[in-house]
Amino acid sequence: MRQRFKPWAKEKLQEYPAIVAQNPAELKGRWHEYFGNNNPIHIEVGTGKGQFVTGMGKAHPDINYIGMEIYDSIIVSALEKIVVEDIGNVKIIRENAQKLTDFFEPSEVDRVYLNFSDPWPKNKHEKRRLTHEFFLAIFKTILGENGEIHFKTDNQGLFEYSLHSFSKYGMVLNQVWLDLHNSDYEGNIMTEYEEKFSSKGFRIYRTEAQFRSKN
Amino acid sequence: MRQRFKPWAKEKLQEYPAIVAQNPAELKGRWHEYFGNNNPIHIEVGTGKGQFVTGMGKAHPDINYIGMEIYDSIIVSALEKIVVEDIGNVKIIRENAQKLTDFFEPSEVDRVYLNFSDPWPKNKHEKRRLTHEFFLAIFKTILGENGEIHFKTDNQGLFEYSLHSFSKYGMVLNQVWLDLHNSDYEGNIMTEYEEKFSSKGFRIYRTEAQFRSKN
Repeated sequence: MRQRFKPWAKEKLQEYPAIVAQNPAELKGRWHEYFGNNNPIHIEVGTGKGQFVTGMGKAHPDINYIGMEIYDSIIVSALEKIVVEDIGNVKIIRENAQKLTDFFEPSEVDRVYLNFSDPWPKNKHEKRRLTHEFFLAIFKTILGENGEIHFKTDNQGLFEYSLHSFSKYGMVLNQVWLDLHNSDYEGNIMTEYEEKFSSKGFRIYRTEAQFRSKN
Repeated sequence: MRQRFKPWAKEKLQEYPAIVAQNPAELKGRWHEYFGNNNPIHIEVGTGKGQFVTGMGKAHPDINYIGMEIYDSIIVSALEKIVVEDIGNVKIIRENAQKLTDFFEPSEVDRVYLNFSDPWPKNKHEKRRLTHEFFLAIFKTILGENGEIHFKTDNQGLFEYSLHSFSKYGMVLNQVWLDLHNSDYEGNIMTEYEEKFSSKGFRIYRTEAQFRSKN
């Protein structure tokens, strides 16, 4: 995502400790306290400017959402949406996915969303792809048995790779959409990127992949 | 596939017992004798007029191919190609896939090809799809552990379903192509149907799915 540097972003993120988890490791095992309820927790890894996670938060008030993003200047836009629209069930972690097991107990999370993740097209960068087994192992840990990853992208190469990687990890592709915007899928919340690229005619691919206990 | 009735087809098929296995159940466990060598055996299920299986036979002389098709009037075209071009490593079974375990010992087959199989789009016909677990169990039996199914289709719904079905069965999608004809895949042999529909701009989907021993 294109990033405009916002020198004030870091400070802004610190002003809202009830929305931006300032020290997420301290909340490990206590996220339901932070949210103030026992609803299921869904995480979007790489949440960008937050259009998806805030849209989901508004559409599904009985789910707790966490948007995770490493760039201050980007995630601050998500914060602004949450504040302006007063969305109580969406929180933010400004960290990267490798640390997820520091922040969540096993099975503390119910679903992971990956939307338009960086494709890292070069083979030598394969391990950086969020659907690489390195990250799948992390997601499986915090999700627990039968946890689900919902993944969409317009990047054909990344989707091909991810179908391979999910199946190699023993996951079941419960559903696959090879052209999401021309399907009967209902309730799709678009990311900023998705709006832009689907309007240019790019196909959007989506799958719901589930871990199996026997892995 | 559109079928023009050829009343002479059945008799023609009987005239070439060295190419068309007249009683395939009698060859169970003895296919290498029938081929006259110990090369690996690859089966195309639903071989139609035989352009793929004969093309593969010519391209890979060290593989034994069997084209399987239920319609006399269609499979006779494959027979004609084999006879006219004198292709020694391609044989024919005029039967349906349900009987495969009557014709082959476990692990007697090394690979199964499914090309542009009937999509059976209605839910109530799901069990007729060749990528349904009913057929996967049959293929796994004759293929043995780590056997592969190479599947291509232009039918988006069937491909989406099949990715689900393969993964649910515990298979690994070793490779996936979401636009085969615009990929770097080499050595693609087109079926008659594939030539026609890809020229109209339809995407061709392909995957190589592999059984795992732990299933």
